[in-house]
Amino acid sequence: MFRLYWADEGGLPAGDRGLAYGDGLFETIRMSGHRGVLLSRHLERMVRDAARLGIEVSRKELANVCVEAAQRFADRFNSEDWVLKLTLTRGSGGRGYRPDPGMEPNLMVSASPLPPVPDPAGVAVDVSKVPLTVNPLLAGIKSLNRIEQVLAASDLGPSLFEVMMADRDGNLVEGTRTNLLLRRGDCWLTPPASSLAVAGVLRQWLLERLRQRGDTVTERPVTVNDVLGPDCQGLFLLNSVLGIVPVRTIAGHDLPVDGGLATIFNPLEKLE
Amino acid sequence: MFRLYWADEGGLPAGDRGLAYGDGLFETIRMSGHRGVLLSRHLERMVRDAARLGIEVSRKELANVCVEAAQRFADRFNSEDWVLKLTLTRGSGGRGYRPDPGMEPNLMVSASPLPPVPDPAGVAVDVSKVPLTVNPLLAGIKSLNRIEQVLAASDLGPSLFEVMMADRDGNLVEGTRTNLLLRRGDCWLTPPASSLAVAGVLRQWLLERLRQRGDTVTERPVTVNDVLGPDCQGLFLLNSVLGIVPVRTIAGHDLPVDGGLATIFNPLEKLE
Repeated sequence: MFRLYWADEGGLPAGDRGLAYGDGLFETIRMSGHRGVLLSRHLERMVRDAARLGIEVSRKELANVCVEAAQRFADRFNSEDWVLKLTLTRGSGGRGYRPDPGMEPNLMVSASPLPPVPDPAGVAVDVSKVPLTVNPLLAGIKSLNRIEQVLAASDLGPSLFEVMMADRDGNLVEGTRTNLLLRRGDCWLTPPASSLAVAGVLRQWLLERLRQRGDTVTERPVTVNDVLGPDCQGLFLLNSVLGIVPVRTIAGHDLPVDGGLATIFNPLEKLE
Repeated sequence: MFRLYWADEGGLPAGDRGLAYGDGLFETIRMSGHRGVLLSRHLERMVRDAARLGIEVSRKELANVCVEAAQRFADRFNSEDWVLKLTLTRGSGGRGYRPDPGMEPNLMVSASPLPPVPDPAGVAVDVSKVPLTVNPLLAGIKSLNRIEQVLAASDLGPSLFEVMMADRDGNLVEGTRTNLLLRRGDCWLTPPASSLAVAGVLRQWLLERLRQRGDTVTERPVTVNDVLGPDCQGLFLLNSVLGIVPVRTIAGHDLPVDGGLATIFNPLEKLE
């Protein structure tokens, strides 16, 4: 179903299309020992979005690899949580851009320590000068085409947790590695999945939880005025490895901070 | 200046950012024995566009690698022309998307036979259903973020040489691996470089030649009507490996074919 490569044994073959064209996609999964946070959602997204790219992969085989990866890697992190990364590419070869039919995908599996944990009292973010462009056929897919995010993240420094990226109409769409959720008036506001470069699994999980408890969640473009205006009661960044992160300041403007959301809904405790 | 990898000895390391994020760029150069067609332009583009991505590389060292590559590969192709590919990535590591300062780039060098040569009497092309999105900061860069081209090229079959990709306003911008040039009335028409996903070296070379001989070349968006209307005197596709390719039919519509351009300006004979 796929050819398996362990990153601690070497890279992918020279002809791999992930390197050549970014022709693939990836998942980064927070692992607590042998268990993956929101694991089933990560696997479902990878299978679904791979299919959108024309790459066929079995959820069951991916799940088996995660078990095997935990056996291989978990002990290396001294009981700390760690990050499992799955990189799935269309495979090797093809005629230039054109894939051959029936190519065997490559799957590379790697492990790394958790990134620095954000300040629970809130983080500082800025607005990136790098515009975000989203092809409607690729919207939401965590593909290997991420140069825009790399360029935007180049502006991150020790005092800045994230930069928010805007589309060409100036709407705030997402951070380089986070989705955004705004508390505004009596509802929650977030850009629609069809506008996103990456539709995060934590975003989807949290929207479902909020709706389950009766909250109103509106998916529409988010403007700078939505964030800086008087109705904003809090801006949150969502990342399945780091959790729900309240924003304290954006581009130097203070925002109201309510850590409640991160306390009530903590997916890091809910190992689905 | 960079770490050199020969593709016939293996791939890039597992942590390479070219694979992780498409964080790099590439050149494919037609080689006639040891000499590269439009080689100096390929090298200049790679150095310039790498700098736009924040990747520093020396033209002289790249040129030296091309000499070395020719010594290594040229004899394998039985005196046939061949294709040299340079894949330059930002290097290995970094903190997620954010690159570390002073990373050492990776350069992978590979060789392959020429692709099938297009029919000099003209080729058949179609218009892709995959929209082309171009981030203004990345316009023209032959980066490793090429999923749109992969998806578009998936529709290519034996009877179709290329599919043309349109922007969200419906303008025809380029093919998956070719730039376009239209003969219309008494001038040449081509989309401006700022609108291109990849600004080809053959395109630039040819525009200079046409202007040198006194022709009028207009760079503006090209509509479907420009191509199908009565003023169209010929559509040409430009690719530095394959040359100047006249289009015989587009989406089933016949176009006037004049092979003259390909005969007068044949960069494959002019090994700069």
